[in-house]
Amino acid sequence: MTIPSAPSPHRVVIVGGGFGGLYAAQNLGRAPVRVTLVDKRNFHLFQPLLYQVATGSLSPADISTPLRLVLRKNTNTQVLMDEAIDLDPMKQTLTLREGRQLEYDSLIIATGVSHHYFGNDQWRTRAPGLKTVEDAIEIRRQIFYAFEEAEKVTDPEVQQAWLTFVIVGGGPTGVELAGAIAELAHHIIPDEFRNIDTTRTRILLIEGMDRVLPPYPPELSAKAADALQRLGVTVKTSQMVTEMTDEAVTVRQGETVERIAAKTILWAAGVKASKMGEIIAEKTGTPLDRTGRVIVEPDLSLPKHPNIFVIGDLAHYAHTGDRPLPGVAPVAMQQGEYVAKLIRKKLQGQLLPPFKYVDGGSLAVIGQNAAVVDLGFVRFSGFLAWLIWVFAHIYYLIEFDNKLVVMVQWGWNYLTRGRGARLITGEAMDLSAKLEKMEKNRV
Amino acid sequence: MTIPSAPSPHRVVIVGGGFGGLYAAQNLGRAPVRVTLVDKRNFHLFQPLLYQVATGSLSPADISTPLRLVLRKNTNTQVLMDEAIDLDPMKQTLTLREGRQLEYDSLIIATGVSHHYFGNDQWRTRAPGLKTVEDAIEIRRQIFYAFEEAEKVTDPEVQQAWLTFVIVGGGPTGVELAGAIAELAHHIIPDEFRNIDTTRTRILLIEGMDRVLPPYPPELSAKAADALQRLGVTVKTSQMVTEMTDEAVTVRQGETVERIAAKTILWAAGVKASKMGEIIAEKTGTPLDRTGRVIVEPDLSLPKHPNIFVIGDLAHYAHTGDRPLPGVAPVAMQQGEYVAKLIRKKLQGQLLPPFKYVDGGSLAVIGQNAAVVDLGFVRFSGFLAWLIWVFAHIYYLIEFDNKLVVMVQWGWNYLTRGRGARLITGEAMDLSAKLEKMEKNRV
Repeated sequence: MTIPSAPSPHRVVIVGGGFGGLYAAQNLGRAPVRVTLVDKRNFHLFQPLLYQVATGSLSPADISTPLRLVLRKNTNTQVLMDEAIDLDPMKQTLTLREGRQLEYDSLIIATGVSHHYFGNDQWRTRAPGLKTVEDAIEIRRQIFYAFEEAEKVTDPEVQQAWLTFVIVGGGPTGVELAGAIAELAHHIIPDEFRNIDTTRTRILLIEGMDRVLPPYPPELSAKAADALQRLGVTVKTSQMVTEMTDEAVTVRQGETVERIAAKTILWAAGVKASKMGEIIAEKTGTPLDRTGRVIVEPDLSLPKHPNIFVIGDLAHYAHTGDRPLPGVAPVAMQQGEYVAKLIRKKLQGQLLPPFKYVDGGSLAVIGQNAAVVDLGFVRFSGFLAWLIWVFAHIYYLIEFDNKLVVMVQWGWNYLTRGRGARLITGEAMDLSAKLEKMEKNRV
Repeated sequence: MTIPSAPSPHRVVIVGGGFGGLYAAQNLGRAPVRVTLVDKRNFHLFQPLLYQVATGSLSPADISTPLRLVLRKNTNTQVLMDEAIDLDPMKQTLTLREGRQLEYDSLIIATGVSHHYFGNDQWRTRAPGLKTVEDAIEIRRQIFYAFEEAEKVTDPEVQQAWLTFVIVGGGPTGVELAGAIAELAHHIIPDEFRNIDTTRTRILLIEGMDRVLPPYPPELSAKAADALQRLGVTVKTSQMVTEMTDEAVTVRQGETVERIAAKTILWAAGVKASKMGEIIAEKTGTPLDRTGRVIVEPDLSLPKHPNIFVIGDLAHYAHTGDRPLPGVAPVAMQQGEYVAKLIRKKLQGQLLPPFKYVDGGSLAVIGQNAAVVDLGFVRFSGFLAWLIWVFAHIYYLIEFDNKLVVMVQWGWNYLTRGRGARLITGEAMDLSAKLEKMEKNRV
């Protein structure tokens, strides 16, 4: 079955509604093309704030926007909630679930990355990662469930295991999660429990490199580690996780092996390219890098397919600087804009110089009033860095429709030190009913 | 294993953190007693607004408050996230999951009601009801998924089936759901789709009695039906659902049988008492009514157990008026306050006259700017009724911590006709991982 396409001269299909795909779609909204945006989900997720959902500050809808709502005024654009499962670059078709075909003249693939457990896929259920709304809800459930269990048990060792949180990976996500859990345990919930002292909570941040935030300048890594320690996080660098059981995690530093009894382990250590990368490699012969990302040309197209583009976290772009561009939102946004502009120019018979990333700086937040900022020409940390972080995020949220609610929620949380969005959900529903429904909806 | 209780002179155990249980706990916060509140969930849910979560206006956390947060200042009160599974009125103990015992001097049971499918339990997965956060997320998923599917399919009959929503039950929940879906389809999302005209959506409200809102005065039922029809809802009264398949629902009116092709069926037709009712009947010999509710004494205690109280939706209270009190929030709140006061008085050797419900009136909302209000001495509908509805709900929310965000979200939704909280979630996560986790967390 073929989905009927409009008789437009040029059909652009975009796969993925993250920052890359959405910015590409927005920048094609007034072009003389026919755009189809395909995403498995019906919403764009503002992933930089996902850790705030995982730790009870915001609700999923606060950082999500329905893709249809964002693009409703672009009458040349159709949104399809579907999944791309195959690609035929010769016929110029994309295969969706249930075998439907979508024809394209230009194809933009922006399906991002998922977690990577470095060959230990059995850790996946033990130590959830943070990429989707479901991940965030699951992490939120585990964090708040741990305090509930600690309050109930009487064995002090078991209690301490419930009050021990291990975060694997000292990049921005790990730092943000560790800081937010520390604030929760030490400042927000202590007076809500009767049997436990939540300030006895241990939060361990495990990083394999010799410092947290490895891509940042060493001085900011040191400042971040200091700020984390002040919040009550134990930072353990140059350490590798070697084993996980239901009761504990084992870490190794050189010859030293340590077993840490912990009920909650969170994974913020590695990413690998989404499955679309493999499909692209197989069907177009384009090489992938070590983590499965697609190595793209200077204009973000594929070597032998100038009408297929890969952008965002899925793209390995190594044409500027001494290493590939990082998998962060600003890179994806700028690549989406670039490809949209390139397609518009090409239709006018014009060319565009290679893509060039304008680095606006790096930000990582550690806790309330604490962040580190690297703007290239200047680096700093503390309250001012935190303010910059807040305004930068509100600025980007303003593109969509959620800023007002997020601002009010943040203001409210800031003043009351509240964290109201800490529901433990997902268990009450009957499991067999859930399964039946999921089964049914897959058909 | 026994959970250690403090050496307080009087131990009150409350089961259930809904309106009844929470109001009882709050009114015992300064009494010379030791309170333990047990709930399966870690939050109180403001159920009257749950339909707004199911239809994409609010997030679950907007209408939920962590029980610990509400009760944190009551130092005589402990919150336990656990489930009561048995009761021994002789030993005065309550059994929790995993066999732990909780001793009490006074016991307040407020575990509410769940859906009732009148002997057709196979309908449960086909036509979800609306009682929990998970129910609301599931209904939200089904509603928005239906529009996504309709946009994709090409067969006009299948398309119409996806665009047909059947709501079974014309009480307040059914009326609210039908009105909210009609607004969505007719006013909020039409310009977001390219292949379908969402104003062709059929919303059918099926009621077995001869009018919607049967407990209300007939004139308000008529006004509600008018308002629904203006919004685009087809009201079908004196009709019974006789069959459901994956593709359709069959309704009967006298001798006439009609088959309605519909992919989405929502259940708002009946409730039955929670399982605690049966346990109470078995262990105390207290009679239950037809729907399993516990028939209580004039002071809300059990006939032979003056220290066990049943309040809220689970209680059948027939000592005033010509029929038992309805299962609405104000009844539960007043009963919670009453029992708390009775316990306080009893400790001072005093008595309290029987419980008396002060009826503040009934409210049902149909859509933006439309509601019906029955204050007893005066009845009206329309915009003023809607304003009263809005302020009544904000007033009750003010008791907790969510009002500011809800007000901003409502204001925002009202001005923009927005409905941003319409995430289709719950499918992206790997099913086997979910199962494993759920399994693990049950242990």
